[in-house]
Amino acid sequence: MSLSEFDLIGRYFAACGATRRDVLKGVGDDAALLRPPSGMELAVTQDTLVCGVHFFPDVDPVALGHKALAVNLSDLAAMGADPAWVTLGLTLPDTDEGWLQAFSHGFAALARASGVSLIGGDTTRGPLSLSVTAMGWVPAGQALRRDGARPGEGVWVSGTLGDAGLALRALQDGVEVSGLDYLRSRLERPQPRLALGKALRGIAGCAIDISDGLAADLGHILQASAVGAELNLSDIPCSQAVEDYVACTGDWSVPLASGDDYELCFTLAEDRSQDLQDLIRHMDCPVTHIGRITREPGLRLRQADGNLYTPQWTGFEHFDPHV
Amino acid sequence: MSLSEFDLIGRYFAACGATRRDVLKGVGDDAALLRPPSGMELAVTQDTLVCGVHFFPDVDPVALGHKALAVNLSDLAAMGADPAWVTLGLTLPDTDEGWLQAFSHGFAALARASGVSLIGGDTTRGPLSLSVTAMGWVPAGQALRRDGARPGEGVWVSGTLGDAGLALRALQDGVEVSGLDYLRSRLERPQPRLALGKALRGIAGCAIDISDGLAADLGHILQASAVGAELNLSDIPCSQAVEDYVACTGDWSVPLASGDDYELCFTLAEDRSQDLQDLIRHMDCPVTHIGRITREPGLRLRQADGNLYTPQWTGFEHFDPHV
Repeated sequence: MSLSEFDLIGRYFAACGATRRDVLKGVGDDAALLRPPSGMELAVTQDTLVCGVHFFPDVDPVALGHKALAVNLSDLAAMGADPAWVTLGLTLPDTDEGWLQAFSHGFAALARASGVSLIGGDTTRGPLSLSVTAMGWVPAGQALRRDGARPGEGVWVSGTLGDAGLALRALQDGVEVSGLDYLRSRLERPQPRLALGKALRGIAGCAIDISDGLAADLGHILQASAVGAELNLSDIPCSQAVEDYVACTGDWSVPLASGDDYELCFTLAEDRSQDLQDLIRHMDCPVTHIGRITREPGLRLRQADGNLYTPQWTGFEHFDPHV
Repeated sequence: MSLSEFDLIGRYFAACGATRRDVLKGVGDDAALLRPPSGMELAVTQDTLVCGVHFFPDVDPVALGHKALAVNLSDLAAMGADPAWVTLGLTLPDTDEGWLQAFSHGFAALARASGVSLIGGDTTRGPLSLSVTAMGWVPAGQALRRDGARPGEGVWVSGTLGDAGLALRALQDGVEVSGLDYLRSRLERPQPRLALGKALRGIAGCAIDISDGLAADLGHILQASAVGAELNLSDIPCSQAVEDYVACTGDWSVPLASGDDYELCFTLAEDRSQDLQDLIRHMDCPVTHIGRITREPGLRLRQADGNLYTPQWTGFEHFDPHV
């Protein structure tokens, strides 16, 4: 059975996510109408996921619904913003109600858990892709920008790095790994670090989410802040699977230059470390000190033997001539 | 020459559109940071255009850049909102710098003319499509919603109807028409009725933009407001080309049920007609009284002989089983 566009939107997305009193009109008019809080700045981000580029055609639609929202909420987390509203542009080759139901289920579950309301968007026919715009609020002047890193600050990351990248190598290239289920859940169901982002307001020098790999994303901080960084390879937090892989292959590009982890990388004055530990004590969000910001530009990695070297990898980029 | 994603964004979209003091951080961080005005409600809309569905693959990229923004600004116009910020999700099969330059030129020209700043988005590889999210502001309580039509109000439309639909029939089906250049400009370069939308605040009962055809879009008003309407066919405003086509074929579906005109349809208490005429006197935006809202539900058309009939067309819908 086919459904008209309006029925589709109505059936699966009309009351999706959290119920919020600041949504005066959600799905169902020319535009959504929203009431902003006072004293806050609005953070807005838009990320598109394209079938065959950002996900496999046979991906679990529940996981895809989750991820389409998660990657956008991760951007808000990296600004220290509280997520409020999202719009969804859904392009579909055909109407598969089972797929839609599963997709909206994954999307809605994360939206509810994050206090986010789906307020609009559209449904069009075409090659499968999802374009989400997420909006959130941050107290005036407290957003975590990329240009705030200062020499002497520590460099920190949340969680573990390289899990999603290793899952991709296993699924795409047949690389043998231990714990594929875990790695795959990290690739397909990233957890945006919203609580950590909020906790970092007023403490961190700057923050970014790791979507293109630590080297590339920390690189954006270094460039925007006109500084450099030295990282200690032995301090990079890795899951057992990634640790085993690196031990076996010596290939550090997985934890350092593969994308899709959606952890936060941030900088912190050394005397604020205790404040951070106090703030995140009750969060399920480990953070690790991995190096420091330097006056000298560029990114350098300290090996186990104490020598520094400059990595050659870049992160994942569309249209990169080397891809 | 290929360019990396970041260079692409930087080169063509970094400073696109109007410069606004409420943009604290535009393109170049995890999210844009914006300062909302006080006493206003935020209107948000997202529309996606897909190659082969919403535009021809060989469309002039300057026109496409214009239209991708225009269709979203038209939604804000229909709410009576002042446009402020947009994000652009651009999915491209490859990097064609000439195409990108032309596209960004069309997009930027309309953005500047409308006082809109491009604040973010992303660029991905994939089948050509454009997903724009537009944000604007409307004084609290003054937005033009779809559910405000009351029996006895007049039904009005701006401009002329059916031009874009007739252009499409000429280009796609080879229908012979007079004045194709004019019709094509209406299809490819719609002008969002922003000034009219603002003028209608506090005067109109409700408003909608005509993207799917008058019958379908007025139908949304009727459904949301739980009313009906009677329209006079002889009052429907048409360009000479559409008038000639209807006279020749008797096919009223072009002005009444084809989409992409992006005119406004609105309702107005009969005693406010003079207020409206006074407000729009200095605008280049003709408006026409075409009928009235009735208590009896449904849409009825009055023919030249005085008889009423109920049209069977529906507007353009993706996934419609009849498309």
